[in-house]
Amino acid sequence: MVTDNDADMVDPGSEDAYELDRKRVAQILDAVEANDQALLTELMEPLHAADIADLLEQINAPDRAALIQLYGREFDGEILSELDESIREEVIGLLNPQVLAEAVRDLESDDVVDLLEDLEEPQQEAILQSLEDADRVAVQQSLSYPENSAGRLMQREVVMAPEHWTVGQAIDFMRESDNLPDQFYHVVLVDPRLHPVGNVTLGRIMGAKRDVRLTDIVEETFQIIPVDQDEEDVAYAFNQYHLISAPVVDDEGRLVGVITIDDAMIVLDEEHEEDILRLAGVSDGSLADRVIATTKQRFPWLAVNLGTAVLASLVIAQFEATIAQFVALAVLMPIVASMGGNAGTQSLTVAVRALATRDLTGSNVWRVIRREVLVGLLNGLAFAIIMGVVGIIWFGSAQLGGVIAVAMVINLVVAGLAGTVVPIILEKVGVDPALASGAFVTTVTDIVGFFAFLGLAGAVLF
Amino acid sequence: MVTDNDADMVDPGSEDAYELDRKRVAQILDAVEANDQALLTELMEPLHAADIADLLEQINAPDRAALIQLYGREFDGEILSELDESIREEVIGLLNPQVLAEAVRDLESDDVVDLLEDLEEPQQEAILQSLEDADRVAVQQSLSYPENSAGRLMQREVVMAPEHWTVGQAIDFMRESDNLPDQFYHVVLVDPRLHPVGNVTLGRIMGAKRDVRLTDIVEETFQIIPVDQDEEDVAYAFNQYHLISAPVVDDEGRLVGVITIDDAMIVLDEEHEEDILRLAGVSDGSLADRVIATTKQRFPWLAVNLGTAVLASLVIAQFEATIAQFVALAVLMPIVASMGGNAGTQSLTVAVRALATRDLTGSNVWRVIRREVLVGLLNGLAFAIIMGVVGIIWFGSAQLGGVIAVAMVINLVVAGLAGTVVPIILEKVGVDPALASGAFVTTVTDIVGFFAFLGLAGAVLF
Repeated sequence: MVTDNDADMVDPGSEDAYELDRKRVAQILDAVEANDQALLTELMEPLHAADIADLLEQINAPDRAALIQLYGREFDGEILSELDESIREEVIGLLNPQVLAEAVRDLESDDVVDLLEDLEEPQQEAILQSLEDADRVAVQQSLSYPENSAGRLMQREVVMAPEHWTVGQAIDFMRESDNLPDQFYHVVLVDPRLHPVGNVTLGRIMGAKRDVRLTDIVEETFQIIPVDQDEEDVAYAFNQYHLISAPVVDDEGRLVGVITIDDAMIVLDEEHEEDILRLAGVSDGSLADRVIATTKQRFPWLAVNLGTAVLASLVIAQFEATIAQFVALAVLMPIVASMGGNAGTQSLTVAVRALATRDLTGSNVWRVIRREVLVGLLNGLAFAIIMGVVGIIWFGSAQLGGVIAVAMVINLVVAGLAGTVVPIILEKVGVDPALASGAFVTTVTDIVGFFAFLGLAGAVLF
Repeated sequence: MVTDNDADMVDPGSEDAYELDRKRVAQILDAVEANDQALLTELMEPLHAADIADLLEQINAPDRAALIQLYGREFDGEILSELDESIREEVIGLLNPQVLAEAVRDLESDDVVDLLEDLEEPQQEAILQSLEDADRVAVQQSLSYPENSAGRLMQREVVMAPEHWTVGQAIDFMRESDNLPDQFYHVVLVDPRLHPVGNVTLGRIMGAKRDVRLTDIVEETFQIIPVDQDEEDVAYAFNQYHLISAPVVDDEGRLVGVITIDDAMIVLDEEHEEDILRLAGVSDGSLADRVIATTKQRFPWLAVNLGTAVLASLVIAQFEATIAQFVALAVLMPIVASMGGNAGTQSLTVAVRALATRDLTGSNVWRVIRREVLVGLLNGLAFAIIMGVVGIIWFGSAQLGGVIAVAMVINLVVAGLAGTVVPIILEKVGVDPALASGAFVTTVTDIVGFFAFLGLAGAVLF
């Protein structure tokens, strides 16, 4: 029976249907502390490898070491696959070499590749040595493809059939084959030179009469993936064309493997995660990283921001005399800069996403820029009125109200323009717009905001 | 032959392997302008429905109307499914009612549901009327489940087998069935009360001997989805447990449908997109939205930001006398606030993501908060030294350097604390942390930054 394996973790009434149960985590840590191996094994048994990996990420390093020690031989390879890179090396180091060898031997070859990619040389070597010969060759072959390429993502086991076969021939072939993959989605039709020419779903094969030709029931959507294609492009194709599996071909167009939607989904998820963190000035990293590592990760972006903030201060310094005469300017000037920064961030986030999803192209770039500028103008006018009135009421000066109003319009228009143009230019010159747009755009809006506001004030108020 | 259908769009050498070809877009628009239906049909023929939808989103409204007019009966339902909501209604309005009816009749029932969800009553009614009776009933039944629930996401066609069957019985059953779905991944085993008890992959069925019992070859990972579960939780389960398909059950635990990984992938993609945009203060919306609609979407977040910026200004206003005496304070104060804002955004983005991926839980919340505060402290100390030195060199005042250094440490520690605690509290009280954290956190860092810097300066410098 399988149902009560994972199903008992699902509580349909709870909002967090799949959250690792806090009570169970506490019980597990108690069992570790009590050194009670039987209880630990019992508590861990219903957990999926992905949940065990999450658990290991959430507890602290000494608890992790104690748990792995006590769990011993029960530790299986899938947990390693699911673990976040930040603690994977630590966990591998904690495993007894025999347990490690056994854990790795259970994994599919593409999971072993994924595991090896991020390890240091000696750990890589140890794991490769523990594999059986055939598996080791397969893993080494995969590692020969460039990092983040389709070749690393694909699995080599493909169910294929000559294009002239009938449904009956395909079924008989599969029934007689004794090394069919556990899960596959299509039979790939190939021509005599092993070039893939179509995909037939298992559903159609099971539902068709024996004498129907396979070429008559191929799927409408069919994409071929070159083995050296970037995994980001692969994920895009799966998402855009709703692919379930796609054949991978070498330079001569010969079938060498197949990529399935579950692999593409993982890549898509990683890309998204990366984009979100990069937009906020956080490079890679995870919750399990240590303080020093995290501090180092966050430092560079803060340093860039310090540079841009100093630039903005230099602009303010040009107007020291003006501010000295009229201190209200110092009170109001951050408002103009802050509104510009936020409007710029809105525009740039939309532009960065549209570039990532390939919705922003040569065909609509000018229309999008015009739209963002117009949106900046309209919101600028709206907030100009609001802030103009606030300025008049607060400081009793219509001139000051007018200055902040005009500066607001200027800065929001510039924000719309910079928020769109900066990511487009960065993409053109090959820099990831998610990573660098923020610094550029807020520098522009800070400088323009302070300059417009203080410059106008200097001209109008004195 | 299928290969040259989509495959000729893929140019393995190009970086943008799947971007809608700019040249083709230009040719298509030329054909529309020349009113050349034959050429248009020929140019559109190799495009996938998803690409045609992208094309319609990228061109402007008059071109869109002209293209749809000329394309006429070739317009198929899948294009409608792929279209962004922002222009879907417009496009449906442009279609001749007969073309619309035919387009919709080709769609699977779950795609029709997806299409109907966002339409106004009269358009909904028109589409429902164009369906055959059986399809209409299926669609209406799906619409009876709550929005964004598993019930809306699932398909009703399930291949199931009694748990006592053997491989041979399952194969014979499938071969004799004449309404097998085109694509399915598992045979769902059910007990006599129709409760799902396990999944068997087609691969294992094809690879096993006829007398093997299905229960002996079920998949290890098995998750049951309640029909009223939120689609976000469904997507999480697919991503976390690498599910390919999962049975959906009603309140009594009876099998009512199945959700497949491709549907989950779409939900996951939407959730990510929403999170990224919300973090930047952009609610829904797409590139195809018009200026007025976009202006309205962006306004609320900017209004919130104006409120927080005014709050920060009120803090500055308390120190007008101090600034009047020492204008250098006005020059330097934005630096402290800006660094705090950026550090806070880093922390909050990590926290928001960790909450979304359920990596931040009761088990590690205190450790994460402590870590963020320590990271803020360390980076604060680093930048305190840098800015202290800059302050001394720039303004020749060790006291001013000291003030900015201490304010920097305080604000970066507060940023780490607020950046973690604010999202956690928002999540607890049921507000989406992606949407609201930014405003709260930058308000805190602005106020604390200005207050600490100007307050210390007032105390120390005079």
